[in-house]
Amino acid sequence: MKHHVAVLGATGAVGQRFIQLLENHPDFEVHELVASSRSAGKPYSEAAKWKLATPMPEGIRQKVVKSTEEPLESRILFSGLDSDVAGQAEEAYRAKGHIVISNSKNHRMDEDVPLVVPEINPEHLALVELQKKKYGGAIVTNPNCSTIGLVLGLAPIMELGVEHMIVSTMQAISGAGYPGIPSFDILDNVVPHIGGEEPKIEEEPNKIFGKFDGKGISPNPTRISAMVHRVPSLDGHLEAVSVKFKKTVTREDIVSRMKGFEGEPQKLNCPSAPKPAVQYFEAVDRPQTRLDRELGKGMTVSVGNLRPCSVFDWKFNLLVHNTVRGAAGGTILIAELMLRKGMI
Amino acid sequence: MKHHVAVLGATGAVGQRFIQLLENHPDFEVHELVASSRSAGKPYSEAAKWKLATPMPEGIRQKVVKSTEEPLESRILFSGLDSDVAGQAEEAYRAKGHIVISNSKNHRMDEDVPLVVPEINPEHLALVELQKKKYGGAIVTNPNCSTIGLVLGLAPIMELGVEHMIVSTMQAISGAGYPGIPSFDILDNVVPHIGGEEPKIEEEPNKIFGKFDGKGISPNPTRISAMVHRVPSLDGHLEAVSVKFKKTVTREDIVSRMKGFEGEPQKLNCPSAPKPAVQYFEAVDRPQTRLDRELGKGMTVSVGNLRPCSVFDWKFNLLVHNTVRGAAGGTILIAELMLRKGMI
Amino acid sequence: MKHHVAVLGATGAVGQRFIQLLENHPDFEVHELVASSRSAGKPYSEAAKWKLATPMPEGIRQKVVKSTEEPLESRILFSGLDSDVAGQAEEAYRAKGHIVISNSKNHRMDEDVPLVVPEINPEHLALVELQKKKYGGAIVTNPNCSTIGLVLGLAPIMELGVEHMIVSTMQAISGAGYPGIPSFDILDNVVPHIGGEEPKIEEEPNKIFGKFDGKGISPNPTRISAMVHRVPSLDGHLEAVSVKFKKTVTREDIVSRMKGFEGEPQKLNCPSAPKPAVQYFEAVDRPQTRLDRELGKGMTVSVGNLRPCSVFDWKFNLLVHNTVRGAAGGTILIAELMLRKGMI
Amino acid sequence: MKHHVAVLGATGAVGQRFIQLLENHPDFEVHELVASSRSAGKPYSEAAKWKLATPMPEGIRQKVVKSTEEPLESRILFSGLDSDVAGQAEEAYRAKGHIVISNSKNHRMDEDVPLVVPEINPEHLALVELQKKKYGGAIVTNPNCSTIGLVLGLAPIMELGVEHMIVSTMQAISGAGYPGIPSFDILDNVVPHIGGEEPKIEEEPNKIFGKFDGKGISPNPTRISAMVHRVPSLDGHLEAVSVKFKKTVTREDIVSRMKGFEGEPQKLNCPSAPKPAVQYFEAVDRPQTRLDRELGKGMTVSVGNLRPCSVFDWKFNLLVHNTVRGAAGGTILIAELMLRKGMI
Repeated sequence: MKHHVAVLGATGAVGQRFIQLLENHPDFEVHELVASSRSAGKPYSEAAKWKLATPMPEGIRQKVVKSTEEPLESRILFSGLDSDVAGQAEEAYRAKGHIVISNSKNHRMDEDVPLVVPEINPEHLALVELQKKKYGGAIVTNPNCSTIGLVLGLAPIMELGVEHMIVSTMQAISGAGYPGIPSFDILDNVVPHIGGEEPKIEEEPNKIFGKFDGKGISPNPTRISAMVHRVPSLDGHLEAVSVKFKKTVTREDIVSRMKGFEGEPQKLNCPSAPKPAVQYFEAVDRPQTRLDRELGKGMTVSVGNLRPCSVFDWKFNLLVHNTVRGAAGGTILIAELMLRKGMI
Repeated sequence: MKHHVAVLGATGAVGQRFIQLLENHPDFEVHELVASSRSAGKPYSEAAKWKLATPMPEGIRQKVVKSTEEPLESRILFSGLDSDVAGQAEEAYRAKGHIVISNSKNHRMDEDVPLVVPEINPEHLALVELQKKKYGGAIVTNPNCSTIGLVLGLAPIMELGVEHMIVSTMQAISGAGYPGIPSFDILDNVVPHIGGEEPKIEEEPNKIFGKFDGKGISPNPTRISAMVHRVPSLDGHLEAVSVKFKKTVTREDIVSRMKGFEGEPQKLNCPSAPKPAVQYFEAVDRPQTRLDRELGKGMTVSVGNLRPCSVFDWKFNLLVHNTVRGAAGGTILIAELMLRKGMI
Repeated sequence: MKHHVAVLGATGAVGQRFIQLLENHPDFEVHELVASSRSAGKPYSEAAKWKLATPMPEGIRQKVVKSTEEPLESRILFSGLDSDVAGQAEEAYRAKGHIVISNSKNHRMDEDVPLVVPEINPEHLALVELQKKKYGGAIVTNPNCSTIGLVLGLAPIMELGVEHMIVSTMQAISGAGYPGIPSFDILDNVVPHIGGEEPKIEEEPNKIFGKFDGKGISPNPTRISAMVHRVPSLDGHLEAVSVKFKKTVTREDIVSRMKGFEGEPQKLNCPSAPKPAVQYFEAVDRPQTRLDRELGKGMTVSVGNLRPCSVFDWKFNLLVHNTVRGAAGGTILIAELMLRKGMI
Repeated sequence: MKHHVAVLGATGAVGQRFIQLLENHPDFEVHELVASSRSAGKPYSEAAKWKLATPMPEGIRQKVVKSTEEPLESRILFSGLDSDVAGQAEEAYRAKGHIVISNSKNHRMDEDVPLVVPEINPEHLALVELQKKKYGGAIVTNPNCSTIGLVLGLAPIMELGVEHMIVSTMQAISGAGYPGIPSFDILDNVVPHIGGEEPKIEEEPNKIFGKFDGKGISPNPTRISAMVHRVPSLDGHLEAVSVKFKKTVTREDIVSRMKGFEGEPQKLNCPSAPKPAVQYFEAVDRPQTRLDRELGKGMTVSVGNLRPCSVFDWKFNLLVHNTVRGAAGGTILIAELMLRKGMI
């Protein structure tokens, strides 16, 4: 018996990924679809301009899209709502007792909302209980797509003591949703700016790596500086990271931890948990965006090109599939973990 | 009366740019074309697979290509030779009394060879006289394409005292020459490695910014760490730079120097000297590769997106047209300056 | 003394090209800028998101944009208005005595409006006098971008007697204006549909090649079938054409006419008239979009890859720069010709 | 018990696809890998520069590559050999009793070699027995990638009586193998020429649609004219087809046949046989290269945008995944069918 779920923002780019990834999912079944009032009342096949390279799932085509005002039967809601409506809408659903697992940015930094990467800080999910007491339901958030790649690439080595780091990103166009970036702005081009992105990459990791004391989260103190860029790739954010450690760290210290890394989702056999969670490449020219983004069905973050840094200590590249692990897939993995931990 | 020059490596990507940029040049006339023995003896229009978007100059089509073994009449040689032959060939030309102004990497770090960006270190050209005494002729070199962008973007602010910096590059495919990167390796992709590129960007700037004492160059001590990437753009290397200064530096300190920067080529009205040499953009989303690479006919380096860095002090983006300012155009500007300074 | 002109739709993609191409124009000076009410009242540098790779002309930056309701001082108006407003607005300007030379599709097929490619049917401009009598002013139109390429490629050989033809196009994204095609819809993709494009390519050429009898135009009877596609190129529409002639035609019949072709703009030395108007390539792999679109500053149409067709008679490729010759540049050339013919 | 097979040309682009598609194949197991003498003797993981977005199969990495001179144990050989060696090598293998199922062009038009698309002309496989008697073994060939798309799109409607047709292709870069097209030749470009491609598309379909009388094949007489182009897409050849029928044909005649089409591989449940073999789209903007190439795991050919032609009768677009259905996948499907028909 699968759990019924609703997808919020179902016609958008992230919503479509939710629907694609939830087709034939062992735990969840898409029962309701929610979108803007423009789409509400229409069958999904009419409301959505399907943009993925796999066909729209048959069971979804005839489902009538609901508006955010209508009551929902599903308890678990996966949210890919636009940030201009997600703030209020997600709070309203929480007040009605729903568990909202969201990819939207609005509530990520709220004190009582966990910002979760399941391999890294599953213990932060305890905030769900505190929220339930306060609001009836709860909001759980998935980090920014570039953040997810960065923290998964760093997770194996954080215990070595990271002082600070500089990261430069080369982000795919799908990160901007649809219609997103006009083609005239990106073909044969690189754009050195993505509105609001750098602060997210600089702040979210420290909440994720923060200590939870049963009541709240004390952020981790590592300083991060991000320089972000949009490049003409479809999916996959590549990041160049240079790290200053607190003490001497050898290549072997890093490599052994990268190779041995796993988290609770792997141990609990969550259906979307990739094995490995982090793929380490010895090759100096990997990861590459197109070659490696599909690893672990888009859920594995890959790391490679590890080399000494003449200013800090070590530098390397990492890659995350921004709309799978970095968005819908990461959000679903949170729900899978919550289910196995008896939280939903 | 124009000076006759020869183009070495005339059929390659850099050689073609030399020929394009020297068409109707007020100082120089392409008198001889030199390429590998495979091309030697053929008219240029047969030997070269012309790849530029302006037609092959008429006066060049029928010129018969010479091999590197044949004696040359021109005193000034512009070299775009491949690095596997440039080392010996350029030395041989120097021994015969030629002035070789080269875009090849082989002799850039030689003690008695100047590595010149005309706006920055024209005084290093004095090494030419030392070479002439020793060898008969001289070699003068143009830095790596990414280096040229970086040092021109930094030149205005070096006097503020730069401690160290981290730079991440997003480089165009034309930087790899022709045939260069297979399309299957770069469409919808980013490649985090370019063989031998990072050391050049880390070392060449310190020779360029070095002090010349009449005999040799003492390198500048700023530490630089480079992380390089190939992206699917045609021309133009975009760089993300984060800089640590020795003391407090304000935005106004940087901006005023960026805007006021000029060098000897501008003062002496060298034909290829762009005005400005450095274009400063207030906009946070500039420079962009395709929009800004042609500024100053490809000779202007542009800088923008200046913002504070939470790890160092300031970060910004810069852009250089890698095959114009970063290769053939930069080399020609050296010759123009040498001419005006009475060195050739 | 230059003629003052206004640019209608000045902030759009075609409007920007008008402004770029009219900078330092010997005949015309941009005196007024007209755009939607959203832009009206603002200086142009604020109203327009400049997207061209040359800087916005200095003299334009501070000009205050007018709305389509405001009266204009300029007699000659270059229109790049969107088709949803061009219909009425251009008629209103005509009624006020203006000469509107338009790139918009709305009035192209009007009986008394000439649809002009200056090298082909300058005699159709006589309709201007008929319009002036009737309306006070006149509208003159420039064909669809793909049509312009097709008719210029065909013009030299129409006298050989063309029965019918099939043409397949591969069109650049700039043809869709800005923001135009979302990047997610075109990267690593080909789209076999452009709304309303095929009928234009099938019908407009027959008006252009039609006979003018002093009162009206009898369309040419050649049947044309078009299959259009959007491809990931920035500028330049490449077309594959297969032609059935009424009688036997040799390669030499075609090539000699292609090479010898010129029109009235070339004879009258119009400033934007390219020489040649049509560039013929012997090479089987030319024209190519990126290599050849800038020929004649974007005003030359190039033709190549001529070979026998096993179903019709001859097939070849042609290329037109869609936003220069195919839009703003073609429109300006009409005005230059009208000026030299004493019509404005 | 799976049949052991060898992959010839195992390190090339087609060879890598064979290896990818044969991983966990129910009928066949890759037992031997053959490549040029440069690769022979090395483990495959060293010899091949793996370029696919799924990891190299584990069981393959350590296999030592054999040269074409070495004897092979496998009876069935899948060939992706380069055409400069395939001619002689495949004949030599045939003489030794092997069944060579080849993607190379060399023997496609040989009188006694079948050129097979399993849904269309499985009866041509009877030529295998004739070859065996004559040579000991046999060669079976897979058509050109563009041909396969074209004939599968046409197969449902050939019975309506096709007089002639014109087809224009927009082909992906992977069709040129690796390294194939230099990126500088295709980014922001379209190239109107692919050496030798047009004759294949014009001739091969008539052999495939030819009648087999027990001894040989009489070619079908439909005239085809092809105009081919290379565009910047990674995989997937899109084709624009206009067809002249012998008599009046309605939209319903075409659509009903497109929708109802299936062949012997579907009936016999060959593992790689897609269902449907041909996907028909009502939408005017489909198929699109990136959205539809993966249908049926890359084995389905899709057709759409059906509309009347003003010169012929009907025109439409079709799409084929050139390296799956158009190369390795099509070849494997031949073998699967031969196996089920008791021919191997």
